[in-house]
Amino acid sequence: MRRVLLTVAYDGGAYKGWQKQDCTDLQTVEEEVERGLRRLFPGQKLNSIAASRTDRGVHSLGQRMTIDVETTMPTERIPPAIRPFLPEDILVVKAEDVPDQFHPRHDCVQKTYEYLIWNGKVKDPRKRLHAAFNNWPHPLDVEKMREGAKAFIGTHDFSAFRAMGSSSRGTVRTVFDCQVETEGDYVRILVTGNGFLYNMVRIMAGTLMYVGQGKILPQEVAQIIESKNRKLAGPTAEPQALTLLEINYDFQRKYVDN
Amino acid sequence: MRRVLLTVAYDGGAYKGWQKQDCTDLQTVEEEVERGLRRLFPGQKLNSIAASRTDRGVHSLGQRMTIDVETTMPTERIPPAIRPFLPEDILVVKAEDVPDQFHPRHDCVQKTYEYLIWNGKVKDPRKRLHAAFNNWPHPLDVEKMREGAKAFIGTHDFSAFRAMGSSSRGTVRTVFDCQVETEGDYVRILVTGNGFLYNMVRIMAGTLMYVGQGKILPQEVAQIIESKNRKLAGPTAEPQALTLLEINYDFQRKYVDN
Repeated sequence: MRRVLLTVAYDGGAYKGWQKQDCTDLQTVEEEVERGLRRLFPGQKLNSIAASRTDRGVHSLGQRMTIDVETTMPTERIPPAIRPFLPEDILVVKAEDVPDQFHPRHDCVQKTYEYLIWNGKVKDPRKRLHAAFNNWPHPLDVEKMREGAKAFIGTHDFSAFRAMGSSSRGTVRTVFDCQVETEGDYVRILVTGNGFLYNMVRIMAGTLMYVGQGKILPQEVAQIIESKNRKLAGPTAEPQALTLLEINYDFQRKYVDN
Repeated sequence: MRRVLLTVAYDGGAYKGWQKQDCTDLQTVEEEVERGLRRLFPGQKLNSIAASRTDRGVHSLGQRMTIDVETTMPTERIPPAIRPFLPEDILVVKAEDVPDQFHPRHDCVQKTYEYLIWNGKVKDPRKRLHAAFNNWPHPLDVEKMREGAKAFIGTHDFSAFRAMGSSSRGTVRTVFDCQVETEGDYVRILVTGNGFLYNMVRIMAGTLMYVGQGKILPQEVAQIIESKNRKLAGPTAEPQALTLLEINYDFQRKYVDN
């Protein structure tokens, strides 16, 4: 038996989020991946654990999950071998051996998300499935967004950037970086942190879009964080523009001496 | 009564091409646009004529169509006014008055298409609906593609770049420009011509992908054109990566003296 860490990329457009659910009309990504794994490793328990629960419509290039398998298949063969058993919008991009004690959620040291906004004059209909439109008569002021984004960096109580009504097991998180980039007509928000509250990245993105539209001043972002008041932040930006890019582990730190 | 030229953008992913068809399960873009127009201008004949028939799955930022309307609505109000009557993957981006004799197909002087290839290491599943993957173990050699693309420029008999079995009303076309650009991990083929044979742009793209993969040499492209033999060209590249970007008219030339 060995523990294998999989990196899973998917287009979340057709799914009701990552996590298995009872009685839904739509499939979840987790169900599809587990179905594929059962066909690749029939009769095994697998004991799969995922690192992150992405919401309905959210994409991933870097979801991680562990499975426990008994197989002679070399680890690096797993991604091509599972391919015929997965739909074309889900892809296992990497498989690597990890120690038996490794836990994909507890051992995570940072996650990076991308939020993509189409800032072009024409609402290119090809972009609507993987970006948010700037629903405003003027283009986003990217310089202001950059200024506003700086306020997120650091360790803060992010209560103002958490979905209303979500449970309150600790609201302090550390954002290591928050960048606003442009690429052609796209504006891309990249945010890296040690963890995120429910809807936190989408509320950060909605707030930065308001900053780019002039509805919130860049210097007000710090005040909104401090207020811990969800009502002062911007709206929860649409899910289809959000992608979980990467989840990082510090393999050295924890397991080298075990 | 006045003739109005509309510019229509759409994501073709959900449609069976532009043109109206009998007895299909899927809708066509034309049917959706005409349904929207009938709701905006009830009871009018409209006499709509489109410039181009895009294939199933092909997108557009610059389809053009004329309608004849009797209305007090200012022309520039038509795009926002029709919006509630169209699905979210179809957009009228512009409306302009044209002379009564104007014909959107006959008067076209050039069209520009974009073919988008995802050349990244990871097959990002978000890209599959609007780009083609380079199904080859190595990245495309963009320099070779650029060299090969030059052969298309000029006036040629493009019989080798036409779908087998399509009818033969003239196979000579002029390609004004054919560029291969990169943007991040994308490779973009941009081709402008006075007209294109059935599947011509997709066969050009398939041939240039073969050039980028080393299966066809850049200097062989000219020979393939000369051969007029469809079998020597590359495959017909997938439709979802193709977008009709622009259709141009020379309004001055034809109508200024009428």
